[in-house]
Amino acid sequence: MGFLEKVRNRIAVTGSRLCVGLDPRPGGGVGELRDFLARVIAETLPYAAAFKPNLAYFEAFGSAGLAVLEDTLVRIPAEVPVILDGKRGDIGETQRYYAKACFETWRADAATVNPFLGFDSIEPFLAYPGKAAYLLALTSNPGSADIQRQPCAAGYVFNLVAGFAGRARAAGLPGTVGFVVGLTNASPEVFAAVGDAPLLVPGLGAQGGDLANLAGRPPGIPDLVNVSRGILYAEPEKSFARKAHDYANQIAGRPGGNN
Amino acid sequence: MGFLEKVRNRIAVTGSRLCVGLDPRPGGGVGELRDFLARVIAETLPYAAAFKPNLAYFEAFGSAGLAVLEDTLVRIPAEVPVILDGKRGDIGETQRYYAKACFETWRADAATVNPFLGFDSIEPFLAYPGKAAYLLALTSNPGSADIQRQPCAAGYVFNLVAGFAGRARAAGLPGTVGFVVGLTNASPEVFAAVGDAPLLVPGLGAQGGDLANLAGRPPGIPDLVNVSRGILYAEPEKSFARKAHDYANQIAGRPGGNN
Repeated sequence: MGFLEKVRNRIAVTGSRLCVGLDPRPGGGVGELRDFLARVIAETLPYAAAFKPNLAYFEAFGSAGLAVLEDTLVRIPAEVPVILDGKRGDIGETQRYYAKACFETWRADAATVNPFLGFDSIEPFLAYPGKAAYLLALTSNPGSADIQRQPCAAGYVFNLVAGFAGRARAAGLPGTVGFVVGLTNASPEVFAAVGDAPLLVPGLGAQGGDLANLAGRPPGIPDLVNVSRGILYAEPEKSFARKAHDYANQIAGRPGGNN
Repeated sequence: MGFLEKVRNRIAVTGSRLCVGLDPRPGGGVGELRDFLARVIAETLPYAAAFKPNLAYFEAFGSAGLAVLEDTLVRIPAEVPVILDGKRGDIGETQRYYAKACFETWRADAATVNPFLGFDSIEPFLAYPGKAAYLLALTSNPGSADIQRQPCAAGYVFNLVAGFAGRARAAGLPGTVGFVVGLTNASPEVFAAVGDAPLLVPGLGAQGGDLANLAGRPPGIPDLVNVSRGILYAEPEKSFARKAHDYANQIAGRPGGNN
């Protein structure tokens, strides 16, 4: 089964396009980290179209933190897509090892990839049939103005990244190309650039993005909207399940949403 | 002691500007990985101005590979600068955890950083006094043409990255800003952009870069030239020590070099 089919199936089963971002900031050690993530996954699973562990938070604990990642990944049922958020980017020879880590060692379904080193640097992540790479096109932070939103001959630098999807198709690479587009920066101009490639959209919740910015996306594309801190740390009086439920409704435009 | 002082001291002691890149591609498992790196470090130490482990090769083995990284780091004497090559790049809130991994958990002296997410994404790596961040300005691969060498209002996209050094100075950030400039793409145009910031220069050896491309760098800047595969895997009939010795001479323009 291909990546998009897996995402579509999960969206159909849960009625949710919510990607639960696993960005744990524990005060304690790796034991606390492990228990915290086990609770988050168990509680939010019914509302999760996907999970997205961000490698930074595990790496901060060194090899012991990555061991927690490994323990955490096995808690996620096989039918739920896992997007490893590592934003890796290196030259092709080296990037193959990062792709191996994501898709063979950690068996993720998709990964975020930083495209700054050029098309040859993303190829290794697109060499795996059934897997996907979400390329950073336009992130949600203010600093996205510094490079990604700078004008160039293609329009903006993010247009250069968007063009990699066509190159991957032309090269016959088996992996699926998606894009990361921050909700705070989403616009018709960006949607025109990324076309019908699936999006991973961070920026809802703590980062203050507005779902109305997604108007104009083509129907039928299994875009995912990520919430990390909004579920893990905001409104501590609510359960993880409650927050995930409410965000799933908000994203779907159903009543009982979080807004 | 600041990062540049540590590099200058090491260059003075060894007479070498060679950075030994630790990009191990073992056929076997983590035990072989550990032993291989122990031999490389022991043999090349007298000729190494710095060591640069690339995280991809460890990450490919998962948490067990990162444990080998940790074992490897303790083999490197305290006076030898360690540059962790991870090319991490995430939004500021998350990037702090990557910086913590590099500088607190793994106690490296410097790190390579991918600047594509903008100035706010590099700040966490520049928040550590005595440490350095080498920003990817112009890498050595052909794909560097796709984004880094695209024209924009600033000249080329790599000029946008080069401008981050001045912003870091203006912001009073304590860390040292350096740049990665691939030997294959080094030119007076790039040197004008990066000014007197220290360079980490990959691309000698297997990648075929020409040291003549470094002509025109200002004197007194402790630039480092990295060789990875050229020492670890080329010419297997020679020892690691021999190859490191020869590359150190070649970089210094002394007789007995590798060319």
